[in-house]
Amino acid sequence: MDKYKETFLAFLEKESQINEPNNLYTPIRYIMQMGGKRLRPILVLLSCDLFSETYEEALNAALGVEMFHNFTLLHDDIMDSADIRRGMQTVHKRWDINTGILSGDALMIMSYKMLEKYPVAMYKDLMLLFNKTALQVCEGQQYDIDFESIIEVGADSYFKMIGFKTGVLVASSLKMGAIIGSASKNDQQHMYEFGLNLGIAFQLQDDYLDTYGTENFGKKIGGDIIENKKTILYIKAMEFVDEENKKKLIHLYSNNLDENDKVTHVKQIFTKFNVDVAVLKEIEDFTNLAFKHVEKLSIHEKQKQVLIDFGMRLMKRKI
Amino acid sequence: MDKYKETFLAFLEKESQINEPNNLYTPIRYIMQMGGKRLRPILVLLSCDLFSETYEEALNAALGVEMFHNFTLLHDDIMDSADIRRGMQTVHKRWDINTGILSGDALMIMSYKMLEKYPVAMYKDLMLLFNKTALQVCEGQQYDIDFESIIEVGADSYFKMIGFKTGVLVASSLKMGAIIGSASKNDQQHMYEFGLNLGIAFQLQDDYLDTYGTENFGKKIGGDIIENKKTILYIKAMEFVDEENKKKLIHLYSNNLDENDKVTHVKQIFTKFNVDVAVLKEIEDFTNLAFKHVEKLSIHEKQKQVLIDFGMRLMKRKI
Repeated sequence: MDKYKETFLAFLEKESQINEPNNLYTPIRYIMQMGGKRLRPILVLLSCDLFSETYEEALNAALGVEMFHNFTLLHDDIMDSADIRRGMQTVHKRWDINTGILSGDALMIMSYKMLEKYPVAMYKDLMLLFNKTALQVCEGQQYDIDFESIIEVGADSYFKMIGFKTGVLVASSLKMGAIIGSASKNDQQHMYEFGLNLGIAFQLQDDYLDTYGTENFGKKIGGDIIENKKTILYIKAMEFVDEENKKKLIHLYSNNLDENDKVTHVKQIFTKFNVDVAVLKEIEDFTNLAFKHVEKLSIHEKQKQVLIDFGMRLMKRKI
Repeated sequence: MDKYKETFLAFLEKESQINEPNNLYTPIRYIMQMGGKRLRPILVLLSCDLFSETYEEALNAALGVEMFHNFTLLHDDIMDSADIRRGMQTVHKRWDINTGILSGDALMIMSYKMLEKYPVAMYKDLMLLFNKTALQVCEGQQYDIDFESIIEVGADSYFKMIGFKTGVLVASSLKMGAIIGSASKNDQQHMYEFGLNLGIAFQLQDDYLDTYGTENFGKKIGGDIIENKKTILYIKAMEFVDEENKKKLIHLYSNNLDENDKVTHVKQIFTKFNVDVAVLKEIEDFTNLAFKHVEKLSIHEKQKQVLIDFGMRLMKRKI
């Protein structure tokens, strides 16, 4: 994994000259240099490496995907009025909202430009995937906004939302690497499904750990409950509980109660109705589904193990 | 011209189903149906018709260009805090800023998607042009914002700014039509230069008419002066005037004086230093340069006349 990250970061640095107009490109360089796990570009390179001798061919696509991801962060931070990201001021906070909008627009177009180096047929394959994914990411963001004002969201709608909002870009990262590595259509699709299902599993685990985690990556345990966020725990709970506890939950999620009391009461209801168990089962199911697609790949067992190991490490949060 | 507009509007209507999520696509349909001259899609079809038997082939690109144009309007209206466009509420006013940002993002991606129907080699030609143009439009918008806080902007910088902000999309509309009509590379480039120079001439004329026009399309005569806008008139004036009048101009453009007095005083300075004459000369030069590129096209004289007529009508504002 480290070699991909190092190769990617060197490429990012090389490609990060600031062009004119300065006021447009400085905020773009700022967010691109903020750091982060670089998960998506690593996946592009890793995937290409499974099918091809020269994964460096995938560097442009890797940077394109990372640029697109950062474009979504830039605009999402405006929509969420978020002041801090990765310990630094967000772009619209450090500059202003107009800068955030326009730099985000330019960054999105730059992400498309990164694919220009690929030959015509491959280029179109990549673009069809990129366009479809990009639109789904916007749709996922809209579903997320919509869900805030819906009391009962179905689990399937929630899976679709997190799949669109975060899963499809992880899936596409893997598929783009496979396309550039000249994998068969079947293998491309299995890489995609592996990424999509693992991405959903990861997101569900995020929900789970926010309430049931021990250490929580610097965030406060129960933060989602305090913020009345409709996570998979809340959704499953609304499905499982009796009328009395449903009323209680709705009450707890619509008032500014004492934070510790609120978390304790909500967790009591979750645990009483085995919500935690049900969510762990979903996480396991999506992870297993992801691994099923690895088995179907036409690559060596040793290479399959690379993907399984990656998935295991991701789900154990060691990545 | 009418046949292109009618064909385009019928195609737009056919393509305007609302998909899920409703809250994302309703604002997109709203702005796309707001009307407007539909200048850019008409130019795509007109240009294709000069080189090919079936200009209907260019309908998807025409819609893509119109979508991209509307995406820029959507985000620009947020940046300019504009409440009204084409007599209707702007998207961020009718809904909210977040809706404006996200619907704009989705509309930009949809504009890219409209090119997917073209065969691989043509697709890549179109995309290279579209990407370059899209990024220049963002850069033009940034230069426009930057110029607000610069006292002396050079005329060449101003031409570049309006060229990027509005000219290149007109130019690309014509070039895309030429690409789809299988025009030679030379002809493609002449169509582009025709559009770019005519677009700049049109924009300069817009500046001129705002101060020296008789009827002004519902806008108040002198509106740019009242708003302290650095148009080509102001830029040329700063170049031509003596120190005393430069100080006067800077004073007039930095204070909230009585509107009528202000317009009168500024116009006196403009006229004293023959700014109006110089600007009319620039408009003529850019228009003639545009027409020079028409002459170089390898099409029939009768077809060239179609472009000349179009240019003449546009500059006489009968379109």
